[in-house]
Amino acid sequence: MFIPQPYLLFLGDVTDPLAAKTARGIQVWRPEQCVGEMRLPGCTVSLGLDELDIAAAKARGAKTLVLGTANAGGVLPQHWMESVTSAIKAGMNVASGLHHRLADEPELVALAEAHGVALFDIRHMRPKLAVGSGKKRSGKRVLTVGTDCSVGKMYTSLALEAAMREQGLKADFRATGQTGILVAGEGIAIDAVIADFIAGAAEALSPANDDDHWDIVEGQGSLFHPSYAGVSMGLIHGAQPHWLVMCHEMGRPHMRHLPHQPMVGLADCVEANLRAAQVTSDNPQLAGFAINTSNFSEQEARDYCAQLSATFGVPATDPVRFGIAAIAALLKERG
Amino acid sequence: MFIPQPYLLFLGDVTDPLAAKTARGIQVWRPEQCVGEMRLPGCTVSLGLDELDIAAAKARGAKTLVLGTANAGGVLPQHWMESVTSAIKAGMNVASGLHHRLADEPELVALAEAHGVALFDIRHMRPKLAVGSGKKRSGKRVLTVGTDCSVGKMYTSLALEAAMREQGLKADFRATGQTGILVAGEGIAIDAVIADFIAGAAEALSPANDDDHWDIVEGQGSLFHPSYAGVSMGLIHGAQPHWLVMCHEMGRPHMRHLPHQPMVGLADCVEANLRAAQVTSDNPQLAGFAINTSNFSEQEARDYCAQLSATFGVPATDPVRFGIAAIAALLKERG
Repeated sequence: MFIPQPYLLFLGDVTDPLAAKTARGIQVWRPEQCVGEMRLPGCTVSLGLDELDIAAAKARGAKTLVLGTANAGGVLPQHWMESVTSAIKAGMNVASGLHHRLADEPELVALAEAHGVALFDIRHMRPKLAVGSGKKRSGKRVLTVGTDCSVGKMYTSLALEAAMREQGLKADFRATGQTGILVAGEGIAIDAVIADFIAGAAEALSPANDDDHWDIVEGQGSLFHPSYAGVSMGLIHGAQPHWLVMCHEMGRPHMRHLPHQPMVGLADCVEANLRAAQVTSDNPQLAGFAINTSNFSEQEARDYCAQLSATFGVPATDPVRFGIAAIAALLKERG
Repeated sequence: MFIPQPYLLFLGDVTDPLAAKTARGIQVWRPEQCVGEMRLPGCTVSLGLDELDIAAAKARGAKTLVLGTANAGGVLPQHWMESVTSAIKAGMNVASGLHHRLADEPELVALAEAHGVALFDIRHMRPKLAVGSGKKRSGKRVLTVGTDCSVGKMYTSLALEAAMREQGLKADFRATGQTGILVAGEGIAIDAVIADFIAGAAEALSPANDDDHWDIVEGQGSLFHPSYAGVSMGLIHGAQPHWLVMCHEMGRPHMRHLPHQPMVGLADCVEANLRAAQVTSDNPQLAGFAINTSNFSEQEARDYCAQLSATFGVPATDPVRFGIAAIAALLKERG
């Protein structure tokens, strides 16, 4: 399952910059795979890309129209349909991260078939999977884990891929969520697989590879989140990681969306994740901390990271503010 | 989702007693809900129930025909169809634990509709679920956990329900697997839900209840099984258990189906399960061990259980050989 790149990023008529975060993620991490953006009247968000219509995008080589915005209720608005059908008629594939499936629109399915293009419903892609085996496989793997949901695991994974490549390592990001899948052009939405196949999905996602090759597997959820820990656990076992990077938001008061659920301590969280990883990996180790410090001053952020680094003996950084070269360097040296 | 009882247990033409283990489980745990068994020519397995045809079963009040045998490939053999259609025509529901869905046979769907009966595909029932919240709820809950798959979690749960009821407690078995669901007449096949909803499914399965009511939640998999730990983890969080019963097979050399995967030690397994339970439960405790000792002599089994009990300070028993009254008594006293 490979989503053909480059993309034309469709922003519809959204007015909330947060609603365009999937499109923004693609543009930040794969600018060379974005020929431009397409906006409807009323759209107040822009990624700063060239504004193109379907014909112009096609002329620049766009292979897939990406519906890269969240929408109330996850539906496909009727007034977006013309853009989608125009793209199909121009020979472009369409990829959507909406809850509502393109595949549930008979008109689109027929049109796509007639024009020999594919419809990708990222949230609903269900590759044929086997259950996990836990068998040791070659290659090196890093998994981002977290104290909670939405603490920057995808950002950290992509930043680490970039930093490791910069340091001359063979590193590939492995996507487990919808934005990551669109960035990479492939992956498995791991929270959408049948429960029995979580670990198997993670194994399929990061198969055996060259001994000097690194997979950077995008983590999901947290072992301490009452809603999603099953996904996190299966992902840890299936990814069979040699190294973990712990992601956390500085100062977060409680688990996301759950005011009654206290935040786990970092030491407990590191220990639990390493223990879980030991089930399938011989000697998993902590490679460092990636901290979202955006609610604090730069000095506070530096102090916090320095303290963490001293306590745990590994790099601690905010990848957005300070980069993640130190963790990449540790992996290069000790991996 | 309630499967109407009593049942007529359909054994088809199986010759392997193991293939009839779902039917046997129902007959062992709910004999009062089995009006009889139905066998086709060539069937060499019997549960010792009265052998009835559809008409006789209907006359005795059977409400559902249960396809209670496993079959090569999980398909519905053509020569079973006549029995199934006869049951529907007689006004009986049909419940199947086969991989192949009754709902994928248009003839059966139309017939069931015409006769106002339901088709239950136990492996594929997907109730509408919410994600777990981890919010504290009233009532008492026990969860069976294990070192591995297939160590007797369902048997232990049902035996514990019976023993607790015998000791005057209000106790209900909550089913998470197909045999358990057929025994109870309801439940959720938790390994078949979408990964994001594992904990939510367990919450739905064991909702808030009277303060003196006990849910005995059937565990699945193991936190140390590389294929299924995600399911086990979500189930622990969602069940929000006050007590755990650890199930184990004495002498098992490695994790089931995985010769490369060493068996976890009991102390590590207890600790990991209690830690996981602490995420949603304030003070989860170990209530005892349920050990499958069938490969050892009675004296060896008694010695092993006595040693476990001394080490951990809780009852240890083989529920098949020695019953489980001691664990029920502990729960009654300390719960």
